[in-house]
Amino acid sequence: MQSYPPIGEQLDDVESAREEGRRKMEWALQHMPILRELREQFAETQPLAGQTLGMAMHVEAKTANLVELLALGGAEVAITGCNPLSTHDDVSAALDANESITSYAKRGVGEDDYYAAIESVVSHGPTITVDDGMDMVFAIHEDHPELVDTIVGGAEETTTGVHRLRAMAADGELNYPVFAVNDTPMKRLFDNVHGTGESALATIAMTTNLSYAGKNVVVAGYGDCGRGVAKKAAGQNANVIVAEVEPRRALEAHMEGYDVMPMNEAAAVGDVFVTTTGNRDVITREDFEAMQDGVLLANAGHFDIEIDLDALSELAVDEYEARDGVRAYELADGRRLNVLAEGRLVNLASPIALGHPAEVMDQSFGIQAVCVRELVEHGDEYAAGVHDVPDDLDREVAEIKLDAEGVEIDSLTDTQAEYMDSWSHGT
Amino acid sequence: MQSYPPIGEQLDDVESAREEGRRKMEWALQHMPILRELREQFAETQPLAGQTLGMAMHVEAKTANLVELLALGGAEVAITGCNPLSTHDDVSAALDANESITSYAKRGVGEDDYYAAIESVVSHGPTITVDDGMDMVFAIHEDHPELVDTIVGGAEETTTGVHRLRAMAADGELNYPVFAVNDTPMKRLFDNVHGTGESALATIAMTTNLSYAGKNVVVAGYGDCGRGVAKKAAGQNANVIVAEVEPRRALEAHMEGYDVMPMNEAAAVGDVFVTTTGNRDVITREDFEAMQDGVLLANAGHFDIEIDLDALSELAVDEYEARDGVRAYELADGRRLNVLAEGRLVNLASPIALGHPAEVMDQSFGIQAVCVRELVEHGDEYAAGVHDVPDDLDREVAEIKLDAEGVEIDSLTDTQAEYMDSWSHGT
Amino acid sequence: MQSYPPIGEQLDDVESAREEGRRKMEWALQHMPILRELREQFAETQPLAGQTLGMAMHVEAKTANLVELLALGGAEVAITGCNPLSTHDDVSAALDANESITSYAKRGVGEDDYYAAIESVVSHGPTITVDDGMDMVFAIHEDHPELVDTIVGGAEETTTGVHRLRAMAADGELNYPVFAVNDTPMKRLFDNVHGTGESALATIAMTTNLSYAGKNVVVAGYGDCGRGVAKKAAGQNANVIVAEVEPRRALEAHMEGYDVMPMNEAAAVGDVFVTTTGNRDVITREDFEAMQDGVLLANAGHFDIEIDLDALSELAVDEYEARDGVRAYELADGRRLNVLAEGRLVNLASPIALGHPAEVMDQSFGIQAVCVRELVEHGDEYAAGVHDVPDDLDREVAEIKLDAEGVEIDSLTDTQAEYMDSWSHGT
Amino acid sequence: MQSYPPIGEQLDDVESAREEGRRKMEWALQHMPILRELREQFAETQPLAGQTLGMAMHVEAKTANLVELLALGGAEVAITGCNPLSTHDDVSAALDANESITSYAKRGVGEDDYYAAIESVVSHGPTITVDDGMDMVFAIHEDHPELVDTIVGGAEETTTGVHRLRAMAADGELNYPVFAVNDTPMKRLFDNVHGTGESALATIAMTTNLSYAGKNVVVAGYGDCGRGVAKKAAGQNANVIVAEVEPRRALEAHMEGYDVMPMNEAAAVGDVFVTTTGNRDVITREDFEAMQDGVLLANAGHFDIEIDLDALSELAVDEYEARDGVRAYELADGRRLNVLAEGRLVNLASPIALGHPAEVMDQSFGIQAVCVRELVEHGDEYAAGVHDVPDDLDREVAEIKLDAEGVEIDSLTDTQAEYMDSWSHGT
Repeated sequence: MQSYPPIGEQLDDVESAREEGRRKMEWALQHMPILRELREQFAETQPLAGQTLGMAMHVEAKTANLVELLALGGAEVAITGCNPLSTHDDVSAALDANESITSYAKRGVGEDDYYAAIESVVSHGPTITVDDGMDMVFAIHEDHPELVDTIVGGAEETTTGVHRLRAMAADGELNYPVFAVNDTPMKRLFDNVHGTGESALATIAMTTNLSYAGKNVVVAGYGDCGRGVAKKAAGQNANVIVAEVEPRRALEAHMEGYDVMPMNEAAAVGDVFVTTTGNRDVITREDFEAMQDGVLLANAGHFDIEIDLDALSELAVDEYEARDGVRAYELADGRRLNVLAEGRLVNLASPIALGHPAEVMDQSFGIQAVCVRELVEHGDEYAAGVHDVPDDLDREVAEIKLDAEGVEIDSLTDTQAEYMDSWSHGT
Repeated sequence: MQSYPPIGEQLDDVESAREEGRRKMEWALQHMPILRELREQFAETQPLAGQTLGMAMHVEAKTANLVELLALGGAEVAITGCNPLSTHDDVSAALDANESITSYAKRGVGEDDYYAAIESVVSHGPTITVDDGMDMVFAIHEDHPELVDTIVGGAEETTTGVHRLRAMAADGELNYPVFAVNDTPMKRLFDNVHGTGESALATIAMTTNLSYAGKNVVVAGYGDCGRGVAKKAAGQNANVIVAEVEPRRALEAHMEGYDVMPMNEAAAVGDVFVTTTGNRDVITREDFEAMQDGVLLANAGHFDIEIDLDALSELAVDEYEARDGVRAYELADGRRLNVLAEGRLVNLASPIALGHPAEVMDQSFGIQAVCVRELVEHGDEYAAGVHDVPDDLDREVAEIKLDAEGVEIDSLTDTQAEYMDSWSHGT
Repeated sequence: MQSYPPIGEQLDDVESAREEGRRKMEWALQHMPILRELREQFAETQPLAGQTLGMAMHVEAKTANLVELLALGGAEVAITGCNPLSTHDDVSAALDANESITSYAKRGVGEDDYYAAIESVVSHGPTITVDDGMDMVFAIHEDHPELVDTIVGGAEETTTGVHRLRAMAADGELNYPVFAVNDTPMKRLFDNVHGTGESALATIAMTTNLSYAGKNVVVAGYGDCGRGVAKKAAGQNANVIVAEVEPRRALEAHMEGYDVMPMNEAAAVGDVFVTTTGNRDVITREDFEAMQDGVLLANAGHFDIEIDLDALSELAVDEYEARDGVRAYELADGRRLNVLAEGRLVNLASPIALGHPAEVMDQSFGIQAVCVRELVEHGDEYAAGVHDVPDDLDREVAEIKLDAEGVEIDSLTDTQAEYMDSWSHGT
Repeated sequence: MQSYPPIGEQLDDVESAREEGRRKMEWALQHMPILRELREQFAETQPLAGQTLGMAMHVEAKTANLVELLALGGAEVAITGCNPLSTHDDVSAALDANESITSYAKRGVGEDDYYAAIESVVSHGPTITVDDGMDMVFAIHEDHPELVDTIVGGAEETTTGVHRLRAMAADGELNYPVFAVNDTPMKRLFDNVHGTGESALATIAMTTNLSYAGKNVVVAGYGDCGRGVAKKAAGQNANVIVAEVEPRRALEAHMEGYDVMPMNEAAAVGDVFVTTTGNRDVITREDFEAMQDGVLLANAGHFDIEIDLDALSELAVDEYEARDGVRAYELADGRRLNVLAEGRLVNLASPIALGHPAEVMDQSFGIQAVCVRELVEHGDEYAAGVHDVPDDLDREVAEIKLDAEGVEIDSLTDTQAEYMDSWSHGT
C-alpha cells in the first residue's frame, strides 16, 4: 500500500499548481503573525532536528504554513488529508515541493486511496503525530503498533478527536502521550468560538445568497462551536434557537437570552439549522417531517453524521442540486429541504469554503508548533494518555499574539503577586 | 447604436446559460415570499398591461424575479446592467428567453458597449423607467428628451441615485416623476442596513479567508449602509471605528459605543476598511501612507470612487493579484495594502459576490413592483420631481412580508385610534 | 387661583432643602457638558433678556440646570411640574431661591393644586412656553387665549406632547409656533433610545432586585423608546418580545431578531412588560388573565393609561405593597401580578427613580435652550403651528457635544462637497 | 466575646423589623424557583437533621431564603454578616425570629463587633460552615482548631474565598473539606457573569443618574465578573476597555472586540471604572493623576482594596459627599474623582444596593443547599481540602431551574450515548 504516491507525482501541471499553492500560502501567512514569529524562532534554533512528523490534517493554505514552520524547525514531514473534500491540491503540491516535506493529500480521493495515503505517511516512520480527527493515531494503534515505541507523542486538534482519544485512553488503549490541543483555552475559545462561528455562517450565507436578519437560526449543541455560531448569528440579527441535551449548557444558553427547546420543536420554526454537537443523528426523520419549505441544513461538527441524510433521502420524492453546494430534497407535499455540502463540515466542504479564518488558525497552529517542540524537548516526561497543553506553552502563544497585535498589558506588581499567594489577609 | 444586440444573440451556448440562469432564479424565488405573493396578484390582475419598462439594474437572479414579475403583470420589459461587473450572463439569458423581456445586460462590457446597451433599451420607447443608479433617467434626459412626454414616471433604487435625482430636481432638470424607492423605510432599513451590512462583510470574509473577531473595522460613513456594516461587524466581535463628516451621525455612532475619529487617525489602526459614503476620495494618499501592512480595503458604496486608487497606484512600487478578487499594492517599505474588487461595490463585484441577500431584495423589489403599479394607475397625479413612496404602498409590502413570515400583530382598537387622534385628554 | 404659592413659601426647612437641591444640581451639571458650554455663552450674550418663560416640566436636578441656564441668559422664569410625582422639592426650592426664577413645583400635589400651580405660572405672563407634555400650551389655549398675542412661541419635549400638538394644529387650534424638540434627531435618538432605554430598565431592576438574563421582556411599542428598551434589555441577555400595531415597525423589530407577536400571546410567556406606546389600554384584562405568577408590569410611556389598572383591580382578589414601588395584584388562583410605580412613567415615578440620565438630558436640554434662543431671535419668522427644530440648531448642539467628548471628525473637502451637489457624473 | 448578642436583642422595634424583613424575603422567594422546589424537598426529607450550621454571609433577603431552607431541612443555624455594610437588619431580625436560627448580623458594626459576631456564631459549635469570603473557615482554623474534628465540611461562595482556600490548602493548612461552590458552572457563570454584571451596573447607574451609552467603561480584570460587567456595559452601548494582567484573558477580551490596554493608559480616557480582580492596588495614584474630571470609580470585587483610597485621599485637596453613596475627591487642579460606596463591593454597599438579583442567587444558593446536604450524606468521603462541587449536584440544580422556567430539552438517545462513548468509528 505504501505505493500510494505523493501529490507531486499525481498532478498534470504540477508547476502551476505549486505556484498557485504558494500564492495561497503567502496570503495566509500575511495574516498569521504567530506563525511568522515562530518561523523566525524555529529556523534559528532548529528544535525539531532529527524528528519525523506524521500528519493528517486539512491540507490548505493555513495548515501548510504550520507544516512549513515545522519543516523549518528541522523536521521531516509526511502529511495527508483528514477529509477527502478539504484538500487543496495546489497547496498540497506546494508543500510537496519542499525537500523536507512529502504530501499525499489529494482532493476527492475515494475511501481506499484515503487510507492508502495514511499508510504512506505511516511508512515514513513518524516520531511524532499531528492529527485533526485522530486518523493518524488510530492508524498507528490499529495497524502499526510496532511504531508506538519510537513515537515521542502526538498532538490532536479537534473536539471530536480529543473526545475519542479520551475514550481510547479510558479503555487503556492509547499508548503514547497526546496533547489535547483542542481543549486548551488558546485553541478552544478562538478557533471554535470565533473560527467556526464566523466561517460557518459566512460560508452558508455565500453559498445560498441568504441573510440572517430576522431568521430563526437553530443551533444544535451549545459547546464552544455552538456558542460561536449562536453568538455570531445573533450578532447578525438572527433569532437564535438552541437545542442541547446537557442541562447546564441548555441553561447557559437560556440565560444568554436564546430560545432553548427540543430539536423537534425547533424543527417546526427554524429557517437555518447548524449542527455542532460532534454526535450523530442530531436531526432526524421526524424533524425533517416538521420542517418548513426552503430551510437550510448545515453541519459545523467534525463528521457528516449529524444530519441523518439516509432518512432524508428515504423521505424525499426528489433530489437535485438547487445550487452549487446545495442539494434540495423535495418532500411529497412539495416542501424543499436544502442540505449544504452534503452534510459535511460546511466551512470546509462547501464548494466556496475556505476553512477557518487565517488568524484563528494562527492561534491553533501556534499551539501545535510549541506542543511539537515540547514533545521533542520533554516528551519523555509525559506518560501515555491524553495531556492538557502545559499552561506556559498556551501562555507563550498568547503573549506572541498580543505582541503582534500591538496590545500591551500590565503585569502583577510584587505586592499584588504576594497578595494573590497569601490567604491570611482579613476583611 | 441601437444595433447593440440582446444577450441571447451574443452567447455561444445560450441554451445551457438559460437553464443555469433559470436555476438561479428559482433558488432566489424560493426565498422571496413577497414577490411570490405579488406574482399571483399581478398575473391575475394585469396591472401593467400596455406599458413598456426601460430598466438598468444589476442583472442577477433576484432582480430577474422582479423583471419577470413585471412582465407577468402585463408589461414589455427592456433591461440592461447598471454596472459592467454585476451582470450574470446566464440570468440575463434566462430573462431574454421570456417573450415579453429583452435583456441587453452582459458582464464585463467596455464603456462603449455599456452605453450602447442603454441606448438599445431606450430604443424600446419606455413608458416607465426603473433604475439602480439613475443611468436610465440620465440617458433619457440627456439624449432623448423627446421621450419624456410619453413617460409616466420612474422608480430609483439606490441612495446615490436618489441623491443625484434630488440635485437634478433642485436644478429644475428632472422632467417626470420618480419614486425614491431607496428612501422608503421598507427599502432603506432592510436593504441598506441588513442587506449591505451582512453581504458586504460575508463577501469580504469569503474573499480573504479572514475573520472579524478582534479586528479594527473602520466604517466610512454612518448612513444606513454604514450602520449596517458597523452593527454586523460588531456582532462578529470586531472593534468598530466610524469615520463620518456629519456631526449628528458622528454623535450617533459615538453614543452607540463605537470609536469615532477622522479617517487619517483611523487609517493608522484599522485592519479592515469599508467605505459606504456615496462620496469620492474618502480614503486618500495620506491615509494609505498611514496604514499597516496587510490591511483590507473594500467599498460598499455605489461607485468605485471612494477609495482613491489612482493615488494608491502612484504610491505603490508593485501591484499584483494576491488572491482572486484581491489586488495587493506594495509600498516602498514593504507594506501591502489589499484592495478588494477593484474598489467597486464589493458585494456585487467580487469574484464570489452574490449581491444582496434574496430576502432583503425581496422587500426592495416588492416596493419597486407596487410603485410601478402606482405609476400606471395614478402616475398622472404626480408632478415631475422626486416623490416619496406613498405610505400605503410601503405598508402594503410590510403586511405581505409579515404574513409570509407568519408574524401576527395587533391592530389599534377603536378606542386607541380615537385616543391617538385626540388632543384634549388631560394628565 | 393665582394664589397658589411658590415652593419657597410651602416648605418648613427651606434652607436645607435648597442646599440639598443645589448639591443635586451640581452633580448633574458635572455630567452635562453641553449645558456648561451654553451657560458660558448665554451668560455672556444675554440672548433671553426681557423674556418671561412659562415652563411645565419634571422639576429635578437636570431640568433645573436648564432652567438656571435660561435665567442666566437673561430670562425671568416661572415653572411648575408636569407630573405630580416627578418633582424633587429640594431642587424646586433651590431654583426658587434664584431671583430670576419662581418655582411652584411640589411633589405629590392633588389635582386641584396641580392645575392651580399651572395657573400661577401663567399669571407671570409668559412670552415663551417650555413644555414636557404640553400642559402649558393647553392651559393657555383653553383658559388664557388672551395671552397668545404676546407669546413668541414654545418648545415641547415629549413624543406624546408633540403628537397632541400636531393634532391640535391639524384642527387649526394651535395659535403660536411650537418647536417639536422631541422629534429632532439630537433629542429623539438619544433621549428616547438611550435615556428611556437605560433608565427604565435600571429603575425596574433596582426597584425589584431582579435581573434580565434569560427573562422574556415584552416591549409594547417599537418607537424610539421601545427600541431603546428592547436593545438595552437584549444587551442584558433578555429574550425580547415586541408587541406593535404598525406593520413596518413590527417588521423592523422582526428583522432585528426579536420575537414579534400580539400582546395577548406575549402575555402568556412574558416575565417583564414595559409599555412605551403613548397610547391607552395596551395591556388589558384579557392579557392579565393570561399572565404568569410573579410578572412585572411597568410603563415607560408618558401617561399612566397604558396598563389598564382599573381592570386589574377588578380582577384581583387582593392588592398590597409587595415592595416599595411595587403593588401586587393577587388573582383568584394565587397568581401575583406586580405593577411598578402605579403604572406611571417608571423611571420618574418609582420611589428610587432619578429620571433620565444626566448626559442624555444634556442633549435634549441643549436643544431646548437654543430653540428658546431662536424664538427670541427669529420667532416672528415662524407661523403658528408645530415646527421642526431648524437643522443648524440641532447640528450646533451635536458639535458642542462632540467637542466636549473630545471626539474629532473630518469635514467634507471642497471636491467632496461639490461632488455631493452635482448630478452629472457618470458611472 | 461570646457575649455578642443576636440582632433580636439589639433592635428597638424588633417586631416591625421582622415584618419588613419577612416582606423582603417573600418578594425574593417569589423569584427564586429553585429554592422553592428545594424547600418542599428538604421539609419533606429533613436531610440536615441534627446538624449545626455556622454561616458568614451577606444577610439580606435572598440569603435569608437559603438560611430558612437549611433550617427547614432540619438544621440549627447560626449566622453573621460577611461585610459590615451588606446586612439588612430587618431581614436579620426576621431570620432571628425563627426558632432554629440565630442571627448576629447587624449593619454598620465596627471591627471589634464584626469579629465578636463571628465568635458568637462559632460558639454554637458548627458541624458545617457556609461562607461568603471564608471568614468562618478562617476563624475556626485560626482561633478554634479544636472544632475541626467535629466539622463535616464547608461550602464557600466567592471567587476570592476559594482563591484563599486553595492557597491555604496548598500550604497544608486547610483541615476539613470545603466545596468550591464559586467555581462550579452553575454558580460561576450565572452569579458572576449575570449577577455581578447586571447589578453592579444598575447600582452605579441608579446611584449616579448616569448612563452608559457612549461612555468609556474601563473594566479591571476579565474573569467571570469582569466579563459580565464588560458584556452588560457593551450591551448598554458603552465602549468597553479591559485592563488585565493574564495574557490569555487579555487576548480573549481583545478577540471579543474590546479595547485592551494597561490601566494607566485606560485611566486617561475612562469615564467609569469598575474593578473586578480580587486583587489589591488595581487603581493607584499614578492612575488617579491621569484621570479626567467627573470619572466614576466603583469596585465589584470582594474587598475594598482594589482602588487605593489612601493614595487618593493623599492626592486630594478636598473630599465631600457629592451624592448619597458618592464621595468626591477633588484634585489640586479642580478635577473631581467620584468613588462609589467607599470602594466596597458596589452592588452590596451602595446606599441603594440590593445585592445580586434574586434569580441568580437562586442558582448559587440552590448549589449551596445541595452541597450542604451532600456534606451530611457523604462528607466522610471527602478529604480535607478544596473540592469541586460534584457534577451530579450541579446538574441537579440546572434541571430544577430549567423545569421551573418551563424549558424542555432533549436527552441523548441510546445510539447517541453509545456513539459518544465509542472511539472506533471511522471517518
